[in-house]
Amino acid sequence: MSGNVFGEAFRIVTFGESHGPLIGVVIDGVQPGLPIDVAEIQRQLDRRRPGQSRLVSPRNEPDTVQIVSGVFEGKTTGTPICLLIQNRDQRSQDYARIKDVLRPGHAVYTYLQKYGIFDYRGGGRASGRETAARVAAGAVARQFLEQRGIQIIGFTRQVGPIRAEQVDVSVIEKNAVRAPDLAAAKKMEQFIREIRKEGDSIGGVVEIIVKNVPAGLGEPVFERIEADLAAALMSIGAVKGVEIGEGFRAATMKGSEHNDLFYWDDQKGAVRLQSNHAGGTLGGITTGEDVIIRIAVKPPASIHKQQRTVTRQGKPMIPVFVREWYQLRKPW
Amino acid sequence: MSGNVFGEAFRIVTFGESHGPLIGVVIDGVQPGLPIDVAEIQRQLDRRRPGQSRLVSPRNEPDTVQIVSGVFEGKTTGTPICLLIQNRDQRSQDYARIKDVLRPGHAVYTYLQKYGIFDYRGGGRASGRETAARVAAGAVARQFLEQRGIQIIGFTRQVGPIRAEQVDVSVIEKNAVRAPDLAAAKKMEQFIREIRKEGDSIGGVVEIIVKNVPAGLGEPVFERIEADLAAALMSIGAVKGVEIGEGFRAATMKGSEHNDLFYWDDQKGAVRLQSNHAGGTLGGITTGEDVIIRIAVKPPASIHKQQRTVTRQGKPMIPVFVREWYQLRKPW
Amino acid sequence: MSGNVFGEAFRIVTFGESHGPLIGVVIDGVQPGLPIDVAEIQRQLDRRRPGQSRLVSPRNEPDTVQIVSGVFEGKTTGTPICLLIQNRDQRSQDYARIKDVLRPGHAVYTYLQKYGIFDYRGGGRASGRETAARVAAGAVARQFLEQRGIQIIGFTRQVGPIRAEQVDVSVIEKNAVRAPDLAAAKKMEQFIREIRKEGDSIGGVVEIIVKNVPAGLGEPVFERIEADLAAALMSIGAVKGVEIGEGFRAATMKGSEHNDLFYWDDQKGAVRLQSNHAGGTLGGITTGEDVIIRIAVKPPASIHKQQRTVTRQGKPMIPVFVREWYQLRKPW
Amino acid sequence: MSGNVFGEAFRIVTFGESHGPLIGVVIDGVQPGLPIDVAEIQRQLDRRRPGQSRLVSPRNEPDTVQIVSGVFEGKTTGTPICLLIQNRDQRSQDYARIKDVLRPGHAVYTYLQKYGIFDYRGGGRASGRETAARVAAGAVARQFLEQRGIQIIGFTRQVGPIRAEQVDVSVIEKNAVRAPDLAAAKKMEQFIREIRKEGDSIGGVVEIIVKNVPAGLGEPVFERIEADLAAALMSIGAVKGVEIGEGFRAATMKGSEHNDLFYWDDQKGAVRLQSNHAGGTLGGITTGEDVIIRIAVKPPASIHKQQRTVTRQGKPMIPVFVREWYQLRKPW
Repeated sequence: MSGNVFGEAFRIVTFGESHGPLIGVVIDGVQPGLPIDVAEIQRQLDRRRPGQSRLVSPRNEPDTVQIVSGVFEGKTTGTPICLLIQNRDQRSQDYARIKDVLRPGHAVYTYLQKYGIFDYRGGGRASGRETAARVAAGAVARQFLEQRGIQIIGFTRQVGPIRAEQVDVSVIEKNAVRAPDLAAAKKMEQFIREIRKEGDSIGGVVEIIVKNVPAGLGEPVFERIEADLAAALMSIGAVKGVEIGEGFRAATMKGSEHNDLFYWDDQKGAVRLQSNHAGGTLGGITTGEDVIIRIAVKPPASIHKQQRTVTRQGKPMIPVFVREWYQLRKPW
Repeated sequence: MSGNVFGEAFRIVTFGESHGPLIGVVIDGVQPGLPIDVAEIQRQLDRRRPGQSRLVSPRNEPDTVQIVSGVFEGKTTGTPICLLIQNRDQRSQDYARIKDVLRPGHAVYTYLQKYGIFDYRGGGRASGRETAARVAAGAVARQFLEQRGIQIIGFTRQVGPIRAEQVDVSVIEKNAVRAPDLAAAKKMEQFIREIRKEGDSIGGVVEIIVKNVPAGLGEPVFERIEADLAAALMSIGAVKGVEIGEGFRAATMKGSEHNDLFYWDDQKGAVRLQSNHAGGTLGGITTGEDVIIRIAVKPPASIHKQQRTVTRQGKPMIPVFVREWYQLRKPW
Repeated sequence: MSGNVFGEAFRIVTFGESHGPLIGVVIDGVQPGLPIDVAEIQRQLDRRRPGQSRLVSPRNEPDTVQIVSGVFEGKTTGTPICLLIQNRDQRSQDYARIKDVLRPGHAVYTYLQKYGIFDYRGGGRASGRETAARVAAGAVARQFLEQRGIQIIGFTRQVGPIRAEQVDVSVIEKNAVRAPDLAAAKKMEQFIREIRKEGDSIGGVVEIIVKNVPAGLGEPVFERIEADLAAALMSIGAVKGVEIGEGFRAATMKGSEHNDLFYWDDQKGAVRLQSNHAGGTLGGITTGEDVIIRIAVKPPASIHKQQRTVTRQGKPMIPVFVREWYQLRKPW
Repeated sequence: MSGNVFGEAFRIVTFGESHGPLIGVVIDGVQPGLPIDVAEIQRQLDRRRPGQSRLVSPRNEPDTVQIVSGVFEGKTTGTPICLLIQNRDQRSQDYARIKDVLRPGHAVYTYLQKYGIFDYRGGGRASGRETAARVAAGAVARQFLEQRGIQIIGFTRQVGPIRAEQVDVSVIEKNAVRAPDLAAAKKMEQFIREIRKEGDSIGGVVEIIVKNVPAGLGEPVFERIEADLAAALMSIGAVKGVEIGEGFRAATMKGSEHNDLFYWDDQKGAVRLQSNHAGGTLGGITTGEDVIIRIAVKPPASIHKQQRTVTRQGKPMIPVFVREWYQLRKPW
């Protein structure tokens, strides 16, 4: 039951329910003396915020982040940084009517099975709102990484059947779906509008490219860089798949096609790779080439379209066997 | 540089190079009083062993496992279990000629960048041999899980373009590629033979189905069951992708298609799910339905087909920048 | 630099500086369904608060604790519990004059050596104020333990040369020094008054007795119960020693004196111990007898008596060697 | 039940029972490229070995250490180092008669309570033999630290009532009790001989001085250097107390006595401390002065003098309550 801590060198702990007074994150392990740009953290939270276009969820929360520790005179001190974000939208009455309803695709079912209790006012920790704390922590990490020249680019590679075929980084922030291909973006927007009209939702694929990664990151054998990244990304709600480099396409490739060949780069005076099918890693360690990852995101579970729901009918959710197992698994 | 420990309740530590005297694993946290069937651990190691058919790598090592601690009079005592497997095939002379060669797709490149040193006799820790220690530990875990009725089934879903369309568990052990579909198995075997004739290799997809999983496993938000499984699977060499349930197919699905509906099972007196698109998890917690995972495996890097190699030319592998970064990243 | 997380099953993370807006703690891993009594947490914070008598530091902060997550309708939900305590006393001007002064016994010296930066407004994380977050977390743990019948009693065993010879638990809360012996308490109070008149401070010994501890707690070999308790207690500022049972007195004892003898308790139908020199532990595992621990607390460093101080003289604190070492030790 | 892993940057895992085929340790996180002197590891094991004089336990095991991984051509490779030590003395028949006997001061009682099973051939993991694996790992750490100029000195400060008043490092290895004071050493030896004649044993105090420690080590607030050291030392069987610097004597000191004064060292161009009451730490971080620690060691429990023992009488050891509690505490 202690699963809210992530990372070692840069360790984060998130807390807070979607309908409590606030959510937040504590970051332990940030280097001292690093200038922190609060406006930039805010900008990342604004980017994350739902309701920026009509395409996505209409809940509109002006998330204002506040740093309450670990920064002194604009610089990190090496002590834990706590970031708090107030929840404005705490209308719990909206949720009372669904108190006993198991909605398809929602975590209330498993939370009741595991914990025997659920904050029915909203998704609690299972709410997408939890990711705001991650974005805040990520915005701090990003500032630190950018000072070392590392650049992280994320974009929508696919929405339903529509795929961005080109990657033009400069257009990502210029369209509502944040695709790197304006033609595809238009089709995606149109497609989402149609899906919404049906009262339905649609899945997609997000791609992340990390540039200027130094070679040598990743700790074999269990903390291979892929393993750490996969854990981080699969811990985001709605993510159902992670792949690196060619990913699942590698299953259909021959060794002679997939192997990236080395060459001696006279200008750099170093060995380089002439292709990057592996996605920037070899033996679980970064090669110095771009790290390329894609994640599959399932369609949002909350849809207007009618779907059969089941109520608890006053019966306990947890069958005896599960209850016992759970007790055994608990530390107490 | 401390990445050889995995897990919390059942914690494993693997060690040993492919060409050292032995490899092994220490398991810390096994319940006391559990009968251990050594022959069954051996059987799992025999299943893993390369060279069982002409389809795969010809290296034939009779891996004999030995339990040297944690078991007394045939039962676990609650103290750490150490399993050792001798290496028989230590002919280091085979490897001397490739001491300075960077072979495409091999980890020697990144190991030299990270550690500045590489056990050139073989793949060292990056060798597939490392997985024998995992198999031994897994065989212990499996005995424990089976006593609780949990069943783990693994099989080859795809080899190159050929996909097993049916899942007949009873045929998995009856064909060399361990596919659950005899017709597909024949095609896969034929395909691999052809690829080998070309001096090439091919990728594939492995599927794992876990049956009778109790509901309630997984610790949101960061230790969601998917996140832990993804980390474990992505830490295996050659794995380039992990997906759960519909996985990447979910990206093209609508919410109304992907949402698994609940129903009240009168016989069991419990809520159940009528489909399992999610692959046995909701909100990062197991639902009690089968957990279904697939991993993409890249084609083996070692091929007979000629590929350009690069030698180190006596020059140091690590450019100054990387060397510094690495030092900074090191705990010392 | 990531040292603000403690524990596994009941994991806490503290944050906040003495002169920032607030301090707090996140507790990850609390059992769901546990009723939480906020007034009791507040009562423990009130007990901790300095300035309750004239004997101790006059800073008087009405610490009001607020639970912002993890509790719903008065019960824990199994999600992380965040407790916040506002800092009222943020008069940073008091501290500006000591910005460059290295006061004897204060951590500013080592913080500057380690982090190169120090929040000179107060002790920052090194301030005793940090312990308020621990007390809040401890108050939650205590409620949980008391529901299982476990009782934790702490008291002042010694102040300077004066030792409480009797342990009468009923008088602990009835005297300003919280000694379990009223006669000794009077002498301690008188002694402290005299020391204060001299502008000086004095050390002491605190004893903790835990009653009704179940047998079987502690995980050999490295997480012996003594090891975990010693780490927890030695992580409190000012603690310079920890001992269990006879502790340092055991160094002068013979085996025949120190060994606790077993006997068969017919009434309980169980084996028991007829003495408790070991302090409730054997082989690193609790025996079921009382756990008895003592900690040595050094005299507070802040005294009115004049002591020579040194200023930084504008020179950097960190000699080159240390700077390098620190860089190497850092994860970055 | 997973308590056999210690440390983060230099992480060790020990395994093996006193009467199994071997004991060992895996070290994960050793810097690559470090020359390893196996003879020196062997020398440390020889120093630890009981039976070197008539003063201590007569069991005489020629512990031969073998490195089976992580070292290639005499240097560390950055992969886990496994050290194995064979057990020669496996005469389990010696122990059969005490199978059901609870000997005073022995861990069989608590092991049975916790695990319900005990390797009655010897102390199992609770045996002092377990420390051989720690010594082997420590010998590797020491080589690494010595290359950085850090020197660790350990000696017997006290045996029963006899205390070494002088610290002459040069004589430590020249007397059987390893005291730093030859006059005291003689008295200690004589005292131990008398105690042994009585069929009894005696406790003592060991002191450790670490020289040339760089300033800046220790991670407040929970991983203060004192906390990490206390955990490590209290995890050794028989240790009942740990103190740093003045330790328990600090309880009787005034602030004006205990505070170490700073001064500006013109020659070194750095701030230094003119005394070291604190034992080399301030605010949980090393100051650069010597780290000075003492541990209290209880008298060995195995004595020839007759003491009442209790047998299990065929009854189960674990009362129902404990059994339940233990199940809850277990991860399963």
